[in-house]
Amino acid sequence: MKIVEAQDHNIFFTDQDTGFFSELLEKKAYSTVFVLVDTNTEKHCLPLFLSTYNLPDNVEVISIEAGEENKHIHTCLGVWEALSDLGADRKSLMINLGGGVVTDLGGFVAASFKRGIDFINFPTSLLAMVDASVGGKTGVDLGALKNQVGSIINPQAVVIDTAFLTTLPANEYRSGYAEMLKHGLIQDPAYWKLLANYKAISTDDIATHIQHSVQIKNKVVKEDPKENGLRKILNFGHTLGHAIESYCLTEEGKTTLLHGEAIAIGMILEAYLSVALLNLPDKEAEEIKVVFDSIYPKVNFTEEEIDAILSLLIYDKKNSHGKIQFCLLDKIGAPQWDIEVPTALFKDAFRFYAKN
Amino acid sequence: MKIVEAQDHNIFFTDQDTGFFSELLEKKAYSTVFVLVDTNTEKHCLPLFLSTYNLPDNVEVISIEAGEENKHIHTCLGVWEALSDLGADRKSLMINLGGGVVTDLGGFVAASFKRGIDFINFPTSLLAMVDASVGGKTGVDLGALKNQVGSIINPQAVVIDTAFLTTLPANEYRSGYAEMLKHGLIQDPAYWKLLANYKAISTDDIATHIQHSVQIKNKVVKEDPKENGLRKILNFGHTLGHAIESYCLTEEGKTTLLHGEAIAIGMILEAYLSVALLNLPDKEAEEIKVVFDSIYPKVNFTEEEIDAILSLLIYDKKNSHGKIQFCLLDKIGAPQWDIEVPTALFKDAFRFYAKN
Repeated sequence: MKIVEAQDHNIFFTDQDTGFFSELLEKKAYSTVFVLVDTNTEKHCLPLFLSTYNLPDNVEVISIEAGEENKHIHTCLGVWEALSDLGADRKSLMINLGGGVVTDLGGFVAASFKRGIDFINFPTSLLAMVDASVGGKTGVDLGALKNQVGSIINPQAVVIDTAFLTTLPANEYRSGYAEMLKHGLIQDPAYWKLLANYKAISTDDIATHIQHSVQIKNKVVKEDPKENGLRKILNFGHTLGHAIESYCLTEEGKTTLLHGEAIAIGMILEAYLSVALLNLPDKEAEEIKVVFDSIYPKVNFTEEEIDAILSLLIYDKKNSHGKIQFCLLDKIGAPQWDIEVPTALFKDAFRFYAKN
Repeated sequence: MKIVEAQDHNIFFTDQDTGFFSELLEKKAYSTVFVLVDTNTEKHCLPLFLSTYNLPDNVEVISIEAGEENKHIHTCLGVWEALSDLGADRKSLMINLGGGVVTDLGGFVAASFKRGIDFINFPTSLLAMVDASVGGKTGVDLGALKNQVGSIINPQAVVIDTAFLTTLPANEYRSGYAEMLKHGLIQDPAYWKLLANYKAISTDDIATHIQHSVQIKNKVVKEDPKENGLRKILNFGHTLGHAIESYCLTEEGKTTLLHGEAIAIGMILEAYLSVALLNLPDKEAEEIKVVFDSIYPKVNFTEEEIDAILSLLIYDKKNSHGKIQFCLLDKIGAPQWDIEVPTALFKDAFRFYAKN
């Protein structure tokens, strides 16, 4: 079994053998074990989880409604109350079994329950495996503003078991894939080239690629856990991507985008900005656009919609002192951060995205 | 000016000179400063605060309803939304100006806003000065259960300015005094003797006593920040005291007790348990009862009420594996922790409290 060492915990890549999991639980002698699922993972992942992993008899399952719109403090309140009603104490363990909503929200709930109980993350979506699994970010949204409330705290362990991917819908798979493409763009041009050929990826390859992505992200996070510098490169595509995601989530009549679908657009937009402000060659920006256009559905934005998206930008949590700062590319594999972007460029970036 | 060094920040005892405060703010170059108050401190403390301390022009005040019943996640949500609406970013500073509700809730809000912004606590009640000011505990209640949601995180600084005490009601003053008496009971018999003579305390003395209490608590917290052992001695009187406080807060027709009033009862009850289970001499338990009875109003509890209070005990956050563990006294100044108490003793303890 492959193990990646994160800051103060391990990320386990399972390989049939689940003995490590029993050892984890025995070592800490937890009083009770709670499994947090959402209505999707309760149906598609919980049976496999319960039949694969050795759990104590007194395990309790807490289920929340699936969907980003439930990544809210009210949902946390419900889980805290359930934990309290079910007699959770400071020696209880919480296992978060689900995508990024479950692991982000569950991590925040655990970190704040009775001033902090242990938690273990079992990411079940590709996105959660390659992104939410590493870096200790937990949190919930505040209205349309993503991850406004949360903390940076690490789980006791992360367990990545690709068996959970077999029930993942195709669009969810693509969503996670966008973060992997990003890992290539910011750190590893060869990996980018490899992943750019989307159709060729077989399910056998994916486990290897997930490990590679986790290693890339883990290396960055270990060097800069508090996001004072280097870690900001993980935000490539996210500054505009988050604003687009927030806008589509709250605007009636606009189809909600998955996280990866939104940051795929964000990466095309920010590739344009990278040409305008740094040294990214036109050719590489075109290449980035072609790859994402070939995998992700095209979204049309009216002028009014673009204005609304840009006004959401000022709330992005990466901003300070009112300046909007981006991570952009000098070339593929060579990012720079804290780049200020003149607002006049944004509309041109959207035009670049829109053209065929 | 006296400074006590806490784990990773300073506790300043002001003495006219407020230059240190301007230095604190300048050093970190905060983008915006928010002052959190409640409806009481907005009226009684904010004017003094604004006229004494040098603040930037763009300071914003956020006010919450006063009272323990508002120490709730819904109040946090309101403050998070206000911060967001007012354009707070990751370089913003929050100043919590108030009693324990404001500093506990404000600390949690700041620690969780955009995954953590700086905060400085200005405790304005005696209780907050001697207790909430040290140790990094932040949090809110969950229904009747105190501090179920929160984290352990330290402010950038704590500023103790006894000028704020001049508007404090007498019962609030007594409430804080109970924690100071506790500091004597668990660590300093001479300090206990000194404080036992309640009437003799002059306002000049109180500043010295607050410093002494802060030093006692700070020493304990520094040795065991995560409450794995020694720090549990600070819970003397609190295991039963919290249950009594929770019960009176939520039971209609029962007068709400201030925190210090509840733990004063808790300390009498736990003095009785200390005689029964450890070596506390009868004479010292009597002395403890006489002192608290002379300062705090007597509360009558029916048999049914005692049963309801005891059933709340099982939720106390210090319990694990379903056992209820106490800090008790071997003698005044010599506590022990993790003492299991047979439930049969609880009723006798309440009888000891009730007798004149």
